[in-house]
Amino acid sequence: MEFKEIVETRYATKRFDGQVLSGEKIDQLLEIIRMSASSFGLQPYVIKIVTDDAVKKELMPASFGQEQITTCSHLLVFCANLDVKGRIDEYAKLMGKSGVPQENIMPYIDVMKKFEAGLDEQGKLSWAQRQTYIAVGNAINGAKSLGFDSCPMEGFDPKAYSEILKLPENLIPSVLVTVGYAADEPKPKLRYPKHVLFQA
Amino acid sequence: MEFKEIVETRYATKRFDGQVLSGEKIDQLLEIIRMSASSFGLQPYVIKIVTDDAVKKELMPASFGQEQITTCSHLLVFCANLDVKGRIDEYAKLMGKSGVPQENIMPYIDVMKKFEAGLDEQGKLSWAQRQTYIAVGNAINGAKSLGFDSCPMEGFDPKAYSEILKLPENLIPSVLVTVGYAADEPKPKLRYPKHVLFQA
Repeated sequence: MEFKEIVETRYATKRFDGQVLSGEKIDQLLEIIRMSASSFGLQPYVIKIVTDDAVKKELMPASFGQEQITTCSHLLVFCANLDVKGRIDEYAKLMGKSGVPQENIMPYIDVMKKFEAGLDEQGKLSWAQRQTYIAVGNAINGAKSLGFDSCPMEGFDPKAYSEILKLPENLIPSVLVTVGYAADEPKPKLRYPKHVLFQA
Repeated sequence: MEFKEIVETRYATKRFDGQVLSGEKIDQLLEIIRMSASSFGLQPYVIKIVTDDAVKKELMPASFGQEQITTCSHLLVFCANLDVKGRIDEYAKLMGKSGVPQENIMPYIDVMKKFEAGLDEQGKLSWAQRQTYIAVGNAINGAKSLGFDSCPMEGFDPKAYSEILKLPENLIPSVLVTVGYAADEPKPKLRYPKHVLFQA
């Protein structure tokens, strides 16, 4: 499917049919998410994957009772990762393993560290969340490209999610993507005309 | 091109060849960006399109001298739009024009207005910027799908951009995407292994 068709036909599914996606499909989706662009390549997020029905039910009240949570195959909880330093260290390892010469690694890592040091806690969270949303875009377009459906969701209680999923303090649940096979039909897509979004 | 291949082969181009994209190509790209998902469908951003060489040169010092700015075909300045109320009003019009029954419009608009009223200025900016990054993802993947290249860029001075582009106060330059034909070669893509990004 052409990318143009993906973005035109993808829609926020309100109810899934409960069917579980094959391991192969999910692996393909995670691979697409893993390829997401991010600032410095740091991908400052962790995606918690929820498949257990009991956990989904427990999350329902913290999700304003939205049916996607319990009818989806996989619930992806995109968490901004405030441990950016940890990510920078991992990146240095990654560069080393990939055969980048040591003398090229340190200057790049230093730039990252300087950037990180210049962020306050709120700035760090906002920055990490922005990167997270690029991955969300890949997740929802990726699902469509692989023949299934998705819904990106901001309507949930992050604190309750943290508690139920026993997340460490550095992971801030920021946005959800539910995936599976749709049991609803798309409504006509409403989008602003070009002149609202673009200015020469 | 399959979406999987798009996300695998897209890369942050460091230098473009200066060739100008055809009007048709750019229109296709803008259409892909226009289809982007966003919270409530509000797409709280405006994308300023810079093609003038003199303006690009003026923006260079505010872009840390990065070559993409002057060698690209089109520079897209993604601005978060703090006038969310204005966007909600536009959305009501859009729904009306699309034939949504009036009795269905008001409840949806009320939910949006309540949401908007609950955001402070920092929260509004962060929320708008997050939505903006979904559109950035569509822009960079869209460029690749249409046979050209791109670079998402956070390294610039937003205040200087505002002044040079004479942006109104409600538009906050948040991220850039330069597009055109690459004059460099991609380096091997570095990505964290799955266990760093995903947790069951």
